[in-house]
Amino acid sequence: MTGNPKHGTVCIFGTGDFGRSLGLRLLQAGYEVVFGSRDPKNNSLVPKGSKVMTHAEAAQMARVIFIAVQRDHYQFLTSLTSALEGKVLVDISNNLKMGQYPQSNAEYLNSLVPGASVVKGFNTVSAWALQSGALDASRQVLLCGDDPGAKQAVVDIAHSLGLSAQDRGSLRAAGEIEDIPLQLFPMWRLPLWITAVLCLILIPYLIVYYIVYSYVEQGQDNIYRIMLSLPNKLSAILSLTLMALCYLPSSLAAILQLHNGTKYKRFPDWLDRWMLCRKQLGLIGLLFAVLHAVLVFVVPLSYSYEHGTASDIVDQIRENVTEPFENLWAWRSESYKSLGVLGFVLFLLLGITSLPSVSNTLNWREFRFVQSKLGHLALLLCTVHCFLYGWNKFLLPSRYRWYLPPPYMAGLVVPCVVLVFKLLVLTPCVHYRVSRIRQGWEKPRRRSTANATAANATVPTDKATSL
Amino acid sequence: MTGNPKHGTVCIFGTGDFGRSLGLRLLQAGYEVVFGSRDPKNNSLVPKGSKVMTHAEAAQMARVIFIAVQRDHYQFLTSLTSALEGKVLVDISNNLKMGQYPQSNAEYLNSLVPGASVVKGFNTVSAWALQSGALDASRQVLLCGDDPGAKQAVVDIAHSLGLSAQDRGSLRAAGEIEDIPLQLFPMWRLPLWITAVLCLILIPYLIVYYIVYSYVEQGQDNIYRIMLSLPNKLSAILSLTLMALCYLPSSLAAILQLHNGTKYKRFPDWLDRWMLCRKQLGLIGLLFAVLHAVLVFVVPLSYSYEHGTASDIVDQIRENVTEPFENLWAWRSESYKSLGVLGFVLFLLLGITSLPSVSNTLNWREFRFVQSKLGHLALLLCTVHCFLYGWNKFLLPSRYRWYLPPPYMAGLVVPCVVLVFKLLVLTPCVHYRVSRIRQGWEKPRRRSTANATAANATVPTDKATSL
Amino acid sequence: MTGNPKHGTVCIFGTGDFGRSLGLRLLQAGYEVVFGSRDPKNNSLVPKGSKVMTHAEAAQMARVIFIAVQRDHYQFLTSLTSALEGKVLVDISNNLKMGQYPQSNAEYLNSLVPGASVVKGFNTVSAWALQSGALDASRQVLLCGDDPGAKQAVVDIAHSLGLSAQDRGSLRAAGEIEDIPLQLFPMWRLPLWITAVLCLILIPYLIVYYIVYSYVEQGQDNIYRIMLSLPNKLSAILSLTLMALCYLPSSLAAILQLHNGTKYKRFPDWLDRWMLCRKQLGLIGLLFAVLHAVLVFVVPLSYSYEHGTASDIVDQIRENVTEPFENLWAWRSESYKSLGVLGFVLFLLLGITSLPSVSNTLNWREFRFVQSKLGHLALLLCTVHCFLYGWNKFLLPSRYRWYLPPPYMAGLVVPCVVLVFKLLVLTPCVHYRVSRIRQGWEKPRRRSTANATAANATVPTDKATSL
Repeated sequence: MTGNPKHGTVCIFGTGDFGRSLGLRLLQAGYEVVFGSRDPKNNSLVPKGSKVMTHAEAAQMARVIFIAVQRDHYQFLTSLTSALEGKVLVDISNNLKMGQYPQSNAEYLNSLVPGASVVKGFNTVSAWALQSGALDASRQVLLCGDDPGAKQAVVDIAHSLGLSAQDRGSLRAAGEIEDIPLQLFPMWRLPLWITAVLCLILIPYLIVYYIVYSYVEQGQDNIYRIMLSLPNKLSAILSLTLMALCYLPSSLAAILQLHNGTKYKRFPDWLDRWMLCRKQLGLIGLLFAVLHAVLVFVVPLSYSYEHGTASDIVDQIRENVTEPFENLWAWRSESYKSLGVLGFVLFLLLGITSLPSVSNTLNWREFRFVQSKLGHLALLLCTVHCFLYGWNKFLLPSRYRWYLPPPYMAGLVVPCVVLVFKLLVLTPCVHYRVSRIRQGWEKPRRRSTANATAANATVPTDKATSL
Repeated sequence: MTGNPKHGTVCIFGTGDFGRSLGLRLLQAGYEVVFGSRDPKNNSLVPKGSKVMTHAEAAQMARVIFIAVQRDHYQFLTSLTSALEGKVLVDISNNLKMGQYPQSNAEYLNSLVPGASVVKGFNTVSAWALQSGALDASRQVLLCGDDPGAKQAVVDIAHSLGLSAQDRGSLRAAGEIEDIPLQLFPMWRLPLWITAVLCLILIPYLIVYYIVYSYVEQGQDNIYRIMLSLPNKLSAILSLTLMALCYLPSSLAAILQLHNGTKYKRFPDWLDRWMLCRKQLGLIGLLFAVLHAVLVFVVPLSYSYEHGTASDIVDQIRENVTEPFENLWAWRSESYKSLGVLGFVLFLLLGITSLPSVSNTLNWREFRFVQSKLGHLALLLCTVHCFLYGWNKFLLPSRYRWYLPPPYMAGLVVPCVVLVFKLLVLTPCVHYRVSRIRQGWEKPRRRSTANATAANATVPTDKATSL
Repeated sequence: MTGNPKHGTVCIFGTGDFGRSLGLRLLQAGYEVVFGSRDPKNNSLVPKGSKVMTHAEAAQMARVIFIAVQRDHYQFLTSLTSALEGKVLVDISNNLKMGQYPQSNAEYLNSLVPGASVVKGFNTVSAWALQSGALDASRQVLLCGDDPGAKQAVVDIAHSLGLSAQDRGSLRAAGEIEDIPLQLFPMWRLPLWITAVLCLILIPYLIVYYIVYSYVEQGQDNIYRIMLSLPNKLSAILSLTLMALCYLPSSLAAILQLHNGTKYKRFPDWLDRWMLCRKQLGLIGLLFAVLHAVLVFVVPLSYSYEHGTASDIVDQIRENVTEPFENLWAWRSESYKSLGVLGFVLFLLLGITSLPSVSNTLNWREFRFVQSKLGHLALLLCTVHCFLYGWNKFLLPSRYRWYLPPPYMAGLVVPCVVLVFKLLVLTPCVHYRVSRIRQGWEKPRRRSTANATAANATVPTDKATSL
């Protein structure tokens, strides 16, 4: 129909959703498409312009054959071994869950049809993305296979469809590629665990401090505070702590490098994993900061708060007292709010620059400037915000309920540690040494030890200076 | 000047903005550039390093000629037919409005110079994008043409300029490609119509309920509420309804599939179109949710609200009554606010994940998790938020003004329908059957009917399980 | 190991962070990798599967050699000139600061090894991006070099690694490419200067008007207002002015084009630079708008505001006065808030559409619709918001403190100028002429003058109509 002899013919085994979407897309790009089907008469579903034949006939027509059937049905291919001799079989299958089979689908296919060249790929692209022109979904096709010529043929097809292709090596990588569409936020797991553990510690603490204590000691029923006031305090403490945790590992890394006297010694595993999930930690922190920012405005609109304000005024009049305006109190109240707003807006900026499309437009130096300089500034502002909010409460014995310190102090522990570490690293003498180490300088010592402990998987901390 | 013999020479007819920008870009990429002009002496405008000749001379110099003149002036090309014999003519023109001419510009060009190979393309790239290095604008060149060799030559040029190219088939697709830069949010049309219709129903309703009724029955002049209080209520109802409308079609689709006993029966047209604009519906809903979230905080700052609060307190004192603190009321007030905040933050998250660059980093399973699981959770939270806000108002006869129920009830209709449907689909027996249908299982029945109704354009509902 | 003969062998001189990351990536993509090292025995750091040899041996193994050593050590290459004869040397080096050396690293390398073909490239890609699969960082490789064959070899390698390549011309562009990773927000410099100048004018003005005046004339200590109330007013004025400044140049350009009678006359330099940073101006304006939006809600929560409200009520009761409800005041208060909210949400929308991944999905017409139509609408709403906020203050002599007009009037100057200009350009007769000029029409006049002043660097103002 389009009559484009350049691209030639492609064969697809299977007329399921993905097979048909792929066929349609190939037709649009100027390929001729032949479907192989168990029941070639039943061809009402295939896109117009394509042909349907038996598997054996269809295999004759093209060099590249997409296997768009489920792994459970691969067995029928053993009867086609002669027809498939020398063909490029593209395994596009996905499993329902990870580790469903001991062997990857592509390797299984390879063992069934040893005469063909199997290429794994296209499984990370959805039928939906193929049909809708791939604006919303990834356009990257990950490929692997043992035969470079076969891989190239598949890369060419991907390019014709407007997709980009990335070679992931030999067929042994197939299992990894098959796992990709089944993963559920693997990078978010550790940060979410950390958040969950923090919640498990903080929530009981806050409940005991604000609700149980009032109930037991003062006979007040404050349980309704669990809905707004406590989440507000919880999100404030969590956001500050998580943001600090996102800046702690780089200070730890600097200290470790100082201690080791080289950047070529591998970091301990936990530090590596921590450093890899800094972005996620920061984003969860930002989420809680947003919650805190919203709740801070919601709390004064709540019934209990408004009732309290009205009661105060009524009392003031009945007792005929005039509350004097305290200048110091105004300073404190306005300052901690102002710093909180600034810190929050800075953290929002950091969140926006971590959007993939924004961070792609930044070069390494700009990215570092935003994430490191502005990030530490935001952390500093928010920490001072918390200090000013607390004011002198940490000195008042009445605030220690059942010997528990006021909860805001819990939020200050990690940020203070981070800021002290950062200050330490910024001291001229330390800073000079860290810079030299990051440029490749090593503390002189026995060579053999250095080699034995060296490793090639250190997270690069600074590119510009460390070719 | 750059002296790069690899790329050879490219000819451009026309020295307008686009022609010159393209020429500059080609020169930077190492091409030699020759402009064809009516007035080759007047060459002060062309980029340095390029040459200007008459059209006939310029055409001799290169195989690929970009036609950067307006369609109205194509006629002069008929006098060059011999010079253009066998050349690749790239039609980069755009029209001022859709359907301006019955025939696409590229096909018209092809009819004028039948001896040349016409390729349509580059019209979706702006002169601005070419000049500024294409960071802000699309880098995708859509191409079509009947001669694969000619298309390949243009694809090669696009790649050298750092652009990606997508083949859209034969020259008959030219009209479609020419329409792309003239479209104005085609996917947003249906959602905006739905929003407009909802507004047309809700605004009079709100005005009658809150303003006309007070004016007529109580003699109060509340018209100023049209500026803040009514928009607040309107945006709340709209956002909830639009978000529910965005989740309704997938439930309807499941019910239809259950009824049909197969996923291969085509959905009715209205459902297909509805499903395709779910994202836009959700984003408009989010916009109104943001408006509601802002207005909720603005209303208590308004003069009328502050005046009312002050009056209440003054009255309280003059009448010497103390309003007791009602625990139930506190619970209700804090709960609905808390749920609203959570639901809103979740919807914000959904909005962020629907940004192209974010959704590109998600695999299919993650995207479904966020958009379906978190989406329904957010809808549930917001619906309960609305129920708790309304509390027992739906029972109080005084709230039915002129037999009109309180407006918040209008916002609950669609969400409740969606949630009931979703609950139904989640029932184990229904869920099992829907899953099987989506994996390709069909209810046994007469084959011929199944074929007659089958179609190849069903929207794929789940990729992983439906190869 | 992967045994992929297609890709052949690549050599890397240097085993630093970048060299090893690149080697690992090349191995994964199916290349054989050979490292050249001063100390080939010390090979514990290189990725598994690669070999380490002396520089001379390694150079024998491959056509393409990546020079992953710092410029300071290039000297050793002079001893290898015969081994490097005819090789492709890829200079991937970066400097520590701009203009560190008079000659670019790549040109220096070329002068050291004249027998080899030097290609500059890969320096904009970070080791981190190579290792982590390049999701967060730019995947674009910028290349330049004098030998097209050598460049093509490097382009092929970039493509195999899943990177896109852009040819930037001859080796003379190397300096420019080397500067890219060292730039720190070059496009933001001018907008930030403008913001700084505006701040320097407005902050003293606000301090004098609100604090010094009260202190001197009324003896009030208002200095705490510097923390919340003044930043709120400052951010409001700044955001409105910056947004107006972002729309002013297009009106100025239209007026200049009208005056010149042609679009082919070059704009003055300052206007060109202004037009190029419009997006940044708008985003800084949006940042201040967000600050204003947050502060507007924070101010009423501050101690001084709450104390004032309570005092007012207490006074009202003690003096036994009832403040009557003023309908006009309600209208004014609700209207200006309502317009502010709408304008703010529209500006948020504009900000979201200027995210690279969102603006990439818009065509030229849609982008213009959003940025020009919606942008001017948002500016109009915010200007009226400011007028209504000011109400009749500009008429009251008591508001002119020490002859200083109320500060909100300062925020209205630029927006009013922009809106008047825009209104002028929209007048039918002017609009018709501007449209014709932008379609290429020129006011008849002496040709020679036109040529003399014409230039090829005018910023294209409208693509669709100006091929």
